[in-house]
Amino acid sequence: MQLLKDRICRDGKVKEGNVLKVDSFLNHQIDVSLLCEIGKEFKRIFGDCGVTKILTVEASGIGIACVAAQFFNVPVLFAKKNQTKNISGDVYTRSVESFTHGRSYDIIVSREFLKPEDRVLIIDDFLARGSALLGLVGLVQDAGAQLVGAGIVIEKGFQEGGALVRARGVRVESLAVIESMDPRTGIVFR
Amino acid sequence: MQLLKDRICRDGKVKEGNVLKVDSFLNHQIDVSLLCEIGKEFKRIFGDCGVTKILTVEASGIGIACVAAQFFNVPVLFAKKNQTKNISGDVYTRSVESFTHGRSYDIIVSREFLKPEDRVLIIDDFLARGSALLGLVGLVQDAGAQLVGAGIVIEKGFQEGGALVRARGVRVESLAVIESMDPRTGIVFR
Repeated sequence: MQLLKDRICRDGKVKEGNVLKVDSFLNHQIDVSLLCEIGKEFKRIFGDCGVTKILTVEASGIGIACVAAQFFNVPVLFAKKNQTKNISGDVYTRSVESFTHGRSYDIIVSREFLKPEDRVLIIDDFLARGSALLGLVGLVQDAGAQLVGAGIVIEKGFQEGGALVRARGVRVESLAVIESMDPRTGIVFR
Repeated sequence: MQLLKDRICRDGKVKEGNVLKVDSFLNHQIDVSLLCEIGKEFKRIFGDCGVTKILTVEASGIGIACVAAQFFNVPVLFAKKNQTKNISGDVYTRSVESFTHGRSYDIIVSREFLKPEDRVLIIDDFLARGSALLGLVGLVQDAGAQLVGAGIVIEKGFQEGGALVRARGVRVESLAVIESMDPRTGIVFR
């Protein structure tokens, strides 16, 4: 998606340690008009898959999923990272390792909102080592729902997540795949 | 907002301990078409305030803010609950007490994205004891930005947050204000 790649080149900041900061338009401050174009692109890619629900995980995925869901006319379900008293009763849980935060955490959805008859599209902002995405895929499997695929905004193609998840037979469509990046020489897309 | 009140009565669940579960349409599973109507209502209320930025806090506020922002044509900024290596450098920080989670945490925004020239509309899903909203108001003050008001989806009118924040001179507009609620007798709106 050229608009997105242009934006990443213009406003993204490559930091040491394979960190790409896109917090000026994607995951802290959010350019909602860009999300709108991203949502349309996901609709173009997955529009014929009979999606009944979009699944994401808090926090950065939520805005992207909600704007995209408008084009699919389906509800969003976001996995929570902490058990709270506002989610009670039966839940599906998967463990996710966060490299950004340097710890593991559980992601949780109510069984009530993920059913075998659902056709689920997963949407998330980043795919790097794949832990969060594998967790979301696991939640869909736990529910016995059909996974139609995963729509990712930015994939770090030089990390193993994309290959790991695709090796499980999941259709992963990333709008921008970074082949390599370097604080001095910048970003190369695949 | 009658559509919202009707939905709360139909799908909200009142639990012991002043808990209102709206996780089937607002803060776990999200009915994006309802968010769209909520966004239009915030635009009707705050449309003439010259809003340049919508501020919310992760996680449940993000979807509401992003859908509403489409009607204002402004970016969303969401305060993060944890310092991560993806937000570095200068930040504004406020401490928030969470009654849901039974602990305190910091909310953080980059100084880069909140400026004295901004006219900020705060949007959040719930207003109860007011701690999160006071934290967000504090971030706006720290930045020297102009706060045009706070748009809240559901206010628990029987708790002190609304009065606390309004006493500070903040314009708080809640789309549904709950006067009282009870697991047996249900919800009464103000």
